[in-house]
Amino acid sequence: MKVIKIAAEMQQIALKHVKAGDEIGLVPTMGALHDGHISLIDKSGKNDDITIVSIFVNPTQFGPNEDYLKYPRPIDKDLKICKKHHVDYVFLPSVAEMFSDTHKTFVEVSQMQDILCGAFRKGHFRGVATVVAKLFNISRADRAYFGLKDFQQLKIIEKMAKDLNFTTKIVACPTIREKSALALSSRNSYLNAAQKVNAGLISQILKEAKENFKTKPLKTVLGIALKKLKSIPESKIDYAEIVDFYDLSPASSKTKKAAFLAAVWVGKTRLIDNMAMNK
Amino acid sequence: MKVIKIAAEMQQIALKHVKAGDEIGLVPTMGALHDGHISLIDKSGKNDDITIVSIFVNPTQFGPNEDYLKYPRPIDKDLKICKKHHVDYVFLPSVAEMFSDTHKTFVEVSQMQDILCGAFRKGHFRGVATVVAKLFNISRADRAYFGLKDFQQLKIIEKMAKDLNFTTKIVACPTIREKSALALSSRNSYLNAAQKVNAGLISQILKEAKENFKTKPLKTVLGIALKKLKSIPESKIDYAEIVDFYDLSPASSKTKKAAFLAAVWVGKTRLIDNMAMNK
Repeated sequence: MKVIKIAAEMQQIALKHVKAGDEIGLVPTMGALHDGHISLIDKSGKNDDITIVSIFVNPTQFGPNEDYLKYPRPIDKDLKICKKHHVDYVFLPSVAEMFSDTHKTFVEVSQMQDILCGAFRKGHFRGVATVVAKLFNISRADRAYFGLKDFQQLKIIEKMAKDLNFTTKIVACPTIREKSALALSSRNSYLNAAQKVNAGLISQILKEAKENFKTKPLKTVLGIALKKLKSIPESKIDYAEIVDFYDLSPASSKTKKAAFLAAVWVGKTRLIDNMAMNK
Repeated sequence: MKVIKIAAEMQQIALKHVKAGDEIGLVPTMGALHDGHISLIDKSGKNDDITIVSIFVNPTQFGPNEDYLKYPRPIDKDLKICKKHHVDYVFLPSVAEMFSDTHKTFVEVSQMQDILCGAFRKGHFRGVATVVAKLFNISRADRAYFGLKDFQQLKIIEKMAKDLNFTTKIVACPTIREKSALALSSRNSYLNAAQKVNAGLISQILKEAKENFKTKPLKTVLGIALKKLKSIPESKIDYAEIVDFYDLSPASSKTKKAAFLAAVWVGKTRLIDNMAMNK
C-alpha cells in the first residue's frame, strides 16, 4: 500500500493504471474510518483492480461554526485499516494541496444543494461537489463508492457526475448500523453512552414511518414520526421530510418511491439518517 | 473524419484512444469556423495523435437579450473545413444532449467570472466553464486549444482546469487578424464593410497603448486609448481596462506584465480585443 500526498503524483499513477487496462475504484472519505467506510473499501476490492481511498477533511464543506477543527483525525489507525483491507493507494493530501490560497472554482448543483441539510449548512454541498469533482479527476476512477447514509450527498454527486459527463460510475452502498440501529458515523464519537442509545431511536422511528407510508396519508406518517423524534431526550430537529427518492423534490400523495430524511441534534451532536419508503 | 452526436459515444471513442496510448487534442468551438479556429485545429494536428473539434452553440453562455438565435451556424461549411484540416472527430451534440431539462450543475470561477465581460454578460463565464468541463470529460483531451482573442475566457479556463485538477493542458494560441488588424470573430459577419474598417481601429489603439505602457503612467495610457476608442464611428464602450496579465486583477503602477482588455460595440455588434503589455 502506498500513501500519496501530491495530487499530480496520484494522477500520474492512476493514468498508468488506466493505460494498463486496470479498473480503478475510489472511496472518498474524511478519515476516522468505521465499518461503514470499510464496507465501501471491501466492495471496491471486489469490483475493481485498484482501490484508492482518499482521506481528506475538506474545509470547504464545513461552515464557520461547525466542527472542522475538532473533527476526528486518527490517521495511524486509518492507515492500518486501509492496509488490512488491501487498499492499493491512500491519497492523503494537505489542505494546501487541495485548495490553494488562490482557489476560485466551485461546482454547484442548484436546488438540490439548497434544501434539507443544505438549508442548515450553507455552502456544504458546494464544498462536497467541488472536492469530489477534484477527486474524480485525480483518481480517474471507474467507480466511486458512497454510503446511502449520506443520502442527499449521494443524490447530488450522482447528479453532478451525470451533468458534467464524468465517466466515474457512482456506487451506492447500504448504511451500516450499530446494534441499536444507530447509523455509523465518525461523529458518533462525540456521543456519550446514554446519547448513543437515544440516537438509535432515530432510525427506529424512520423504520416505523416506512411501514406507515404503505397505508397512511403522508401528513399522518410525518406527524407520528415528528412527535417521536421530538420526544428523544436532548433532541432538536433541524428537519424531517419525506421527499421523492430520485430527485429529492417534496413528496406528494402520488409519490410511490420516497425517502424520509432527518437531521436531529442529540445534545451537541448533529446526526442524519434516512429511510427509503415504497408504496 | 467521423461526426459524433452522442456524448457517451464520443467518450467511449476517446477512452479507446487513451488506452491505445494516443494523445488527444480538443478544439472547442461554437462553429462558424474562421482562420482563428483553423490555426487551433492545425496546431492540434501537429501536437496530437487525434484531433477532436467540438461544434456547439452553447445556450448557457448567452444572456436572454443576446444573439443566441441569430449566431451563425454554417454547419456544412464547418464540416468541410474540418475535413480539409484532417480533423479525426467532430463532436456535434444537440442542446438536449448537452443540457437536459433537469440539468442543475454549474462550474463557477468566482471573482474572475464577474469582472470585465462578466460584468456585462451575467452568467456568461459560468456557462463557458460548465460546457468546457463537460467537453474535457467527454473528450478526455490531453490538450485543449483556445485563442488568446478571448483572453478572459482563456484565463478562466486555465484557472478552472488547475483548480479542479483536470489533466487537460490548456494551449493558448495567438489571435488571428484581418488585414485591417481586426481580430477574427464569428460575429464579424454582423458588420458591414464600413464598420469592419472602423472596427480595425480597436486593435490599432490597443497596439499604441502597448507602446505607451512602456514609458507613460497607467492613467495616461488608458486616457489616450479611451478617447480614441470613443471616436470610432458608431462605437459604444462596455469597458476598457488594464489588468494583471496572470490573474486579471486591476493593474497598478508596479505591474510589469499587463493586458489591455476592451469590449466595444460598433453599431449593433459587440467586439472584444486585447493586447499583452510589458514594462
